[in-house]
Amino acid sequence: MNLAIIAPSKDVKDWVETFKKLDPSLTISVFPAIERYDRIDVVVLWQHPHGILKQFPNLKLICSMGSGVDHIITDPDLPGNIPITRIVDPRLTFSMTNYVVMGILNFHRQFLRYLEDKTNKVWDMSNPEIDIQVGVMGAGQLGTDVLDKLKALGIPALAYGNSLKDNYQHPYFYGEELDYFLKQVNVVVCLLPLTPQTTGFLNLKLFKKFNRGTYLINVARGKHLVEEDLLTALSEGYVSGALLDVFQQEPLPKTHPFWEHKAITVTPHIACITMYQAAVPQILDNIQRLAASNPLKNQINLSLGY
Amino acid sequence: MNLAIIAPSKDVKDWVETFKKLDPSLTISVFPAIERYDRIDVVVLWQHPHGILKQFPNLKLICSMGSGVDHIITDPDLPGNIPITRIVDPRLTFSMTNYVVMGILNFHRQFLRYLEDKTNKVWDMSNPEIDIQVGVMGAGQLGTDVLDKLKALGIPALAYGNSLKDNYQHPYFYGEELDYFLKQVNVVVCLLPLTPQTTGFLNLKLFKKFNRGTYLINVARGKHLVEEDLLTALSEGYVSGALLDVFQQEPLPKTHPFWEHKAITVTPHIACITMYQAAVPQILDNIQRLAASNPLKNQINLSLGY
Repeated sequence: MNLAIIAPSKDVKDWVETFKKLDPSLTISVFPAIERYDRIDVVVLWQHPHGILKQFPNLKLICSMGSGVDHIITDPDLPGNIPITRIVDPRLTFSMTNYVVMGILNFHRQFLRYLEDKTNKVWDMSNPEIDIQVGVMGAGQLGTDVLDKLKALGIPALAYGNSLKDNYQHPYFYGEELDYFLKQVNVVVCLLPLTPQTTGFLNLKLFKKFNRGTYLINVARGKHLVEEDLLTALSEGYVSGALLDVFQQEPLPKTHPFWEHKAITVTPHIACITMYQAAVPQILDNIQRLAASNPLKNQINLSLGY
Repeated sequence: MNLAIIAPSKDVKDWVETFKKLDPSLTISVFPAIERYDRIDVVVLWQHPHGILKQFPNLKLICSMGSGVDHIITDPDLPGNIPITRIVDPRLTFSMTNYVVMGILNFHRQFLRYLEDKTNKVWDMSNPEIDIQVGVMGAGQLGTDVLDKLKALGIPALAYGNSLKDNYQHPYFYGEELDYFLKQVNVVVCLLPLTPQTTGFLNLKLFKKFNRGTYLINVARGKHLVEEDLLTALSEGYVSGALLDVFQQEPLPKTHPFWEHKAITVTPHIACITMYQAAVPQILDNIQRLAASNPLKNQINLSLGY
């Protein structure tokens, strides 16, 4: 098989070495050094230049280097008939959940308040906890893991998704139950997939439905959030604070108001990072499945967008 | 029954009201307004003036207002033959574990680093996680809950205690296995009871056995920690940082070096606070058990000290 890695923003040296070590028979090209586009069977993508995929006349498989595929399916020139797979990495789930639980507990136990009290040498024992009920938007693999872990911690939590789920193991709301769902919670975690329907979903209209002072955690995609609407929601009290790992533009520009906003905590898209150690074997497995005409693993459903 | 509450540092109005509401037949005095010491059957204590207990000739039961009893058993004039009970509050365990898990996750995901990066508008995605293995010192009810919750989160953790435990549900070390235990971990949580044996247990000799850069969380008692030794251990790199909720002197004096130390996070003894709503019914239950000559609940073993 001939494989091309197209990930202009990434250093893929470790990926190439791991592919070669695990399957010396593979031929690997790294964009832009691809000599014969017509010989490529499989592309491995992270934020590829849109439009480039139509230059591969014999493409048989498209693999995302991460768990998200929005960078792929937003390409208007995406070939419609080629399967797309994504990475499901237990380590990635572990990292994501730890980050989210950290953010939830820091709100619950008011970690930022105590840091500020420390700066001012203030010893204030009053009201040491904020009672919380957590709403997780997005009940896929990542959202479900967060809900499982919160349940183990004894922290009440509910899920919201965009489709009916039968026998889901946590309280679950969908579609028009959004208002009802939001009225139950004072922490909202966004783990939605990025689709045309969820782009800009975290906007002022939504924030106005929050219980006043709700805390927002966005670890999905920057494009879920209308950033200026968050600033309005903070100044008007719908939202009391936010932990954000993803942004419309990354790295976050130095002039962006989030950097200096006291109630917003910014992290540099590190909630989870796909490890090549986990990803490369999964891509190789799918290449072998493709060669043997076996069903692919973690193939995405293009009509759902995830 | 005649009850006296002796807690000079606390506002006990809510306690008195709750006692009266739940058992109108009780007679309640609040120190120092105790008219007839000889009529008191039960004392409810928080940091009572040592020596005062011998003034109660007809005392039948001593109740701690919290989960700790070190404030009682350190009284050199403690009557030896009167049972002592403590509070076991599931809400208290919930609060304590949440605080500890928050501290562990903040170290694991380097929350303080990202806050500093935010102040400096730095976008640095490198090395977003510190791999952790947690050592919990103290495998009583609180320590075990922390270990249970860490296991649910998938975070490896071991326990250390001072006595042999059979069939304990987590990896457990005791006594002279201390060095071996410490070599496995890079986060140490102190949840030991305060006894003569554990006073000053967190000292430089112990810190020198840590893996370099170990993170310390003390939520037990201030007297577990030799505070100047922590400063030495931080400057020499045995310890990389600490989250401290308890101190030798509380409130922490304004001149104390911990306030300004960058690697030490200080909180004002709020990891868990005993709620009168949970505590009063437990004390009443024991008063009824005493009257009926039934076995007391959560009675402490004076020879163990907890």
